[in-house]
Amino acid sequence: MFKSETKIQVRYAETDMMGVVYHANYLVWMEIGRTELVKNLGFSYKEMEDEGYVSPVTDIQVSYKRGARYGDEVTVVTKIAYYDGLRTHYGVEMFNQNNELLCTAKVEVIVVKKENFRPISLRKVFPHWHEVYEKNKIIV
Amino acid sequence: MFKSETKIQVRYAETDMMGVVYHANYLVWMEIGRTELVKNLGFSYKEMEDEGYVSPVTDIQVSYKRGARYGDEVTVVTKIAYYDGLRTHYGVEMFNQNNELLCTAKVEVIVVKKENFRPISLRKVFPHWHEVYEKNKIIV
Amino acid sequence: MFKSETKIQVRYAETDMMGVVYHANYLVWMEIGRTELVKNLGFSYKEMEDEGYVSPVTDIQVSYKRGARYGDEVTVVTKIAYYDGLRTHYGVEMFNQNNELLCTAKVEVIVVKKENFRPISLRKVFPHWHEVYEKNKIIV
Amino acid sequence: MFKSETKIQVRYAETDMMGVVYHANYLVWMEIGRTELVKNLGFSYKEMEDEGYVSPVTDIQVSYKRGARYGDEVTVVTKIAYYDGLRTHYGVEMFNQNNELLCTAKVEVIVVKKENFRPISLRKVFPHWHEVYEKNKIIV
Repeated sequence: MFKSETKIQVRYAETDMMGVVYHANYLVWMEIGRTELVKNLGFSYKEMEDEGYVSPVTDIQVSYKRGARYGDEVTVVTKIAYYDGLRTHYGVEMFNQNNELLCTAKVEVIVVKKENFRPISLRKVFPHWHEVYEKNKIIV
Repeated sequence: MFKSETKIQVRYAETDMMGVVYHANYLVWMEIGRTELVKNLGFSYKEMEDEGYVSPVTDIQVSYKRGARYGDEVTVVTKIAYYDGLRTHYGVEMFNQNNELLCTAKVEVIVVKKENFRPISLRKVFPHWHEVYEKNKIIV
Repeated sequence: MFKSETKIQVRYAETDMMGVVYHANYLVWMEIGRTELVKNLGFSYKEMEDEGYVSPVTDIQVSYKRGARYGDEVTVVTKIAYYDGLRTHYGVEMFNQNNELLCTAKVEVIVVKKENFRPISLRKVFPHWHEVYEKNKIIV
Repeated sequence: MFKSETKIQVRYAETDMMGVVYHANYLVWMEIGRTELVKNLGFSYKEMEDEGYVSPVTDIQVSYKRGARYGDEVTVVTKIAYYDGLRTHYGVEMFNQNNELLCTAKVEVIVVKKENFRPISLRKVFPHWHEVYEKNKIIV
């Protein structure tokens, strides 16, 4: 099982008048975490796009535990929680610099052709990527 | 059962290089939908804040069906899916101008004191609000 | 001389921990104002894009006078301050519901081909658009 | 004369359907650059806020030269272009990884009391900060 850790410095622009990070911004950080995981496994999301594919989020579940604040350094831990050749579920946990849990999440993504948004099989179109995801997903 | 409908014009800034609305922005629209529902029931989220309370999201589940695009007019339909005096679950559906379903979601919020983020009972602190939510929630 | 007025309801997501709207978000509202002006003059920015052209901002100057706050209704007043067939300068003023000035701005945009970002002459490529802009720009 | 350099990895969420970074996001990066400069000079913007002061932008001028793209690493160069004890002008230049100029900007900020937004004199309230800014500003 593989996990990726990404450090995020909270931006002033990401806070709201509640004094904490606006909840939608956690989704942006999750995407940065996924990109890092993909990179750490030897691939590039950018290159996939250059070849005409994009990877939209199809389902997301977030459980918010504690607000991140300006000045915090957040660690985004990302794992491949499930993978079946078509759909990938990323498991995410975020912590602040005091190791306090900020949120847990599950993000489902697929890969589609950019021109028509039709889903493709990672197994067929990116076989090497498929192999590495099979090897590094969490065994249940 | 009460439902609120809010119209959203997609902003250019909300799109990404995939050509559709970036998925985190749906959460912003959901909040606009909740604010509208609250207003339609005779209350004001702004006034609640002025009294020293804020209403953070504690859990969110979104199932994305179809990308919204620049030029679209989106309708956000919001209902009180669950309410127990402490937690409220808002049920959300979004449609584009062709009545195509963009996403379904469930958003859980609580109310906390702004100064210490301690949860409060809506039933006790805002009894009129409580009464109206009890009356307008979906009966299961 | 033509001017367009657009109403904006401040979104919670647009505020920051300072308690006012984060200053970059005014640029988003200015874009909504420009889109509205274009629409009021009988054109569609969306259609221009569908024909393969985009309209990037090349220069912006904003003088911030007063912070917008959650709950405010902002009026964005947009005029064509300058137009020469190639470049358009939009003059912008924003007011809150008490008619207090929030900011003044000047935004310069050009039109480019989407595929290579090469500037085009509005006069040549969109002659009708050119004519209407000539007629409605501020006479100095 | 002092200058600060900050590296920014372009986020997917920062792009728009034009395929480049949405122009308002450059203002967010400028703020990150200012925070870094402040930190490099031995101060903390966070601590200033904790003492009850905030630092709003009062004027901004940006000249956009070239669009940043997803995958780019952007360098934000920030200098103190002007300082008079009350107002600070930050001079900003941004480059991509090929050393191509993305934009130049000037950002004016002041410091105000958070509770009433009344401007304060940095010279009086933060004398050490004042001294360091005097020493490190660009001499014209």
